[in-house]
Amino acid sequence: MSRLALLLCSVFDSVSDRSRIFEWPIRVYFEDTDSAGIVYYANYLKFMERARSEWLRSFGIDVGKLVQSEKALFVVRSIQVNYQRPARLSDLLTVTVSLKRIGHASLELWQEVIRRNDTLCSSSLQLACLNADSLRPCRIPKQILEKL
Amino acid sequence: MSRLALLLCSVFDSVSDRSRIFEWPIRVYFEDTDSAGIVYYANYLKFMERARSEWLRSFGIDVGKLVQSEKALFVVRSIQVNYQRPARLSDLLTVTVSLKRIGHASLELWQEVIRRNDTLCSSSLQLACLNADSLRPCRIPKQILEKL
Amino acid sequence: MSRLALLLCSVFDSVSDRSRIFEWPIRVYFEDTDSAGIVYYANYLKFMERARSEWLRSFGIDVGKLVQSEKALFVVRSIQVNYQRPARLSDLLTVTVSLKRIGHASLELWQEVIRRNDTLCSSSLQLACLNADSLRPCRIPKQILEKL
Amino acid sequence: MSRLALLLCSVFDSVSDRSRIFEWPIRVYFEDTDSAGIVYYANYLKFMERARSEWLRSFGIDVGKLVQSEKALFVVRSIQVNYQRPARLSDLLTVTVSLKRIGHASLELWQEVIRRNDTLCSSSLQLACLNADSLRPCRIPKQILEKL
Repeated sequence: MSRLALLLCSVFDSVSDRSRIFEWPIRVYFEDTDSAGIVYYANYLKFMERARSEWLRSFGIDVGKLVQSEKALFVVRSIQVNYQRPARLSDLLTVTVSLKRIGHASLELWQEVIRRNDTLCSSSLQLACLNADSLRPCRIPKQILEKL
Repeated sequence: MSRLALLLCSVFDSVSDRSRIFEWPIRVYFEDTDSAGIVYYANYLKFMERARSEWLRSFGIDVGKLVQSEKALFVVRSIQVNYQRPARLSDLLTVTVSLKRIGHASLELWQEVIRRNDTLCSSSLQLACLNADSLRPCRIPKQILEKL
Repeated sequence: MSRLALLLCSVFDSVSDRSRIFEWPIRVYFEDTDSAGIVYYANYLKFMERARSEWLRSFGIDVGKLVQSEKALFVVRSIQVNYQRPARLSDLLTVTVSLKRIGHASLELWQEVIRRNDTLCSSSLQLACLNADSLRPCRIPKQILEKL
Repeated sequence: MSRLALLLCSVFDSVSDRSRIFEWPIRVYFEDTDSAGIVYYANYLKFMERARSEWLRSFGIDVGKLVQSEKALFVVRSIQVNYQRPARLSDLLTVTVSLKRIGHASLELWQEVIRRNDTLCSSSLQLACLNADSLRPCRIPKQILEKL
């Protein structure tokens, strides 16, 4: 390959890589903060779950309908969170979702909570697909695998 | 009636009245507060629901089993809350429940959130009994009516 | 005034009245629901507070900056909520804010939570303006009174 | 050392180790569950923080007074959570706290959420001590180091 081709490839790669990072805006309200004046540590997990729901919606997947029609549910099996800087009341945050790995019955994601150019909090998550009635592991429905 | 009899009656009345007020202790943690340094206004409704669950438990009624075995659920139809003084991190509160009226399919309660001798917040609530599957109004199960 | 003029006035009144109703969209996520499959009753108060924050923002008032620069804070003094129909996972709701009365140190609002054409929950609220340090009642800052 | 001495040592070790594990009971209420019928994943972090506050209280340390008198605050720097089994409405859980390491300005803890003999969720946490005003790392106050 020529140098130009290589350059273009790497540009396209980074574009397509960039395009695979889903972003969702979240505003910090009083409910999210605690008396230390910052966002309470458990509430970042709420922010991340909101962003994951909207990431699925961006593929045409509604978590509510997924439960009803497919009896499928994604639950967090494990999460590792690093809290770097605190968010505060009225902050406008961006929460990202990027898919790291997809298996037959599980997903691995990377999520960040960002304020302007600062990563406030980053997280690695393992999710499992469960049957919504039995809460036992099940395969990710085929049409969802195809969409993701 | 003699004076003594009257006095005894009023003592017994206040004792029996007092005994009908259920009390449940609740400690304020970081999760309950907001960046104004006080308990977030919606969280008092969580405190009240915890106390109602424990009030039912004091009659041998477990809200989890009630849903599973009786398919019955109590939901709040309307609530009026007055916020008088703020609670703060680490406060030890007492949440009260008193039954004002009981119908075939509904309850009326009075609840207070108290810190030592100060009422911080008081509330009047109308609850309905619903079928847990259809979420339609239903009669309060007989054995519960008898217990309350 | 002629009948036509009166008619036009009442039309314009209702239009302008309509235009004074602020609307904010809110999506229901897992965090908002409970094991009865519906939005937990206290969480509607979170939705209402988010809408009030955005209503103030629509006038150029940021609740975070209000605390820092003006040392002013709006707190709920009393609230009456009627729960008519339940909201569920993935519902897209509209939360309204309409100003009923404004005093020197207090506000009265009416808020509704709506799904398509159904009012799920409606609420009358009395708010007070407090000094953010002392938490004592204070006058609503002049520039805010003018904006509202 | 004789075999008996070794045996006794290991018994005493495990006894003393056991005694260092703090336990706090937590009841699951409607507020803690979501529409999947299980405790929402972020709410286990609330349970853990409640247990940490009570663990400090068991040493005579009140987190509210710690902020006011010492201007000190413990915040979570990183957390790794494994979710093994779900908790449900009305479950009575035990949340444990065990101190793994203590530094000049940081703590490492291990926490579990247990239902009878089953570990539902386990967690490794790194906490930092911050100045409550500046939110900058600071040394753990001496009298707290001594107590822990």
